[in-house]
Amino acid sequence: MPKIVDHEHRRGEIVETTWRIIARRGLDAATLRDVAAEAGFANGAIKPYFPTKASLIRATFAHVFERTSRRIDAVTEEATGFEALHAFCLEVLPLDEERLDEARVVISFWQSALNNPDQAELNDAVMLEWRRKIRAWLREARAAGAAPARLPVDAVAETLLTFLLGAQIAAVFDADFNTPDHLETQLEVHLGLLRAD
Amino acid sequence: MPKIVDHEHRRGEIVETTWRIIARRGLDAATLRDVAAEAGFANGAIKPYFPTKASLIRATFAHVFERTSRRIDAVTEEATGFEALHAFCLEVLPLDEERLDEARVVISFWQSALNNPDQAELNDAVMLEWRRKIRAWLREARAAGAAPARLPVDAVAETLLTFLLGAQIAAVFDADFNTPDHLETQLEVHLGLLRAD
Repeated sequence: MPKIVDHEHRRGEIVETTWRIIARRGLDAATLRDVAAEAGFANGAIKPYFPTKASLIRATFAHVFERTSRRIDAVTEEATGFEALHAFCLEVLPLDEERLDEARVVISFWQSALNNPDQAELNDAVMLEWRRKIRAWLREARAAGAAPARLPVDAVAETLLTFLLGAQIAAVFDADFNTPDHLETQLEVHLGLLRAD
Repeated sequence: MPKIVDHEHRRGEIVETTWRIIARRGLDAATLRDVAAEAGFANGAIKPYFPTKASLIRATFAHVFERTSRRIDAVTEEATGFEALHAFCLEVLPLDEERLDEARVVISFWQSALNNPDQAELNDAVMLEWRRKIRAWLREARAAGAAPARLPVDAVAETLLTFLLGAQIAAVFDADFNTPDHLETQLEVHLGLLRAD
């Protein structure tokens, strides 16, 4: 009888192992050989799933983005406007160890994507999704009277997105000034833009 | 007669070549061998200056930060308060091709610094210098009545710093939404926090 292997499950295990290695030891440590060893697979067992390191890296980043997306969906599902926007931001900010690990992975991803159009495209797709959500929530917030009309929605959306990207860097490298409390305060300052005085 | 070599000058040439390679072809392309070839040096001629790739990378990032610092000093020398802060932000934002190249180098640096405490320390030192400048200008701006007193100076300073870091990512990867015009508008939105209504 042929051995039954759940390929989707194996793929998931490989990606899960890879992102942990990148978060803790860096992108250079995530070789196909090391990932196989750490996942408890035979050397060469990764290739059928991910023929190249680039394909493994791309899948790993897609996995991290999906984790974040699922968390965002969970906390914003029942909310609208300013409340949804606030919940979204709190999910994206690296406020705990797990999300700091995700930030380390995303910083590695950005460097990797600099010279890899396929990875850069993945980043663009996620940013576009976030941008659309932020804009929709901002419009709802404005309709509810939360946002001063003098600020254009799109510019506010981009400013917020830029801030959230920067927080990934700030929390990882400059942790003393960017503890969870600090980051939440920064977010309050930022969202202060959206509250009517 | 022994050949006279200006070591400082050679060091500068190596670092200048390295940052251009990183900006255009990525961190992995900046091997000691490739840097030597592109700088027109004999293979092995880099080692006396930079014995390891890590030492070359650190010096290259220090060089990029120094370039930015010199520009900042030049535009803020005669200014104070809000005006100095505004000029500082415009220098840090990647508003032209040269600074987009610097942003690509700094994104590479962040990834490299994730697992290199010496590089992370360099980043911290620069951030501390920027943080001190931003806080001082904010206090001057507030004393001149530009900033609403309800926002704590330190939180506003960190929010601005986080935004400026994020702009390096946004402008490189999401250029359509982060043209120079867009980034200047985002900055205006951000600095709107500091203007008295």
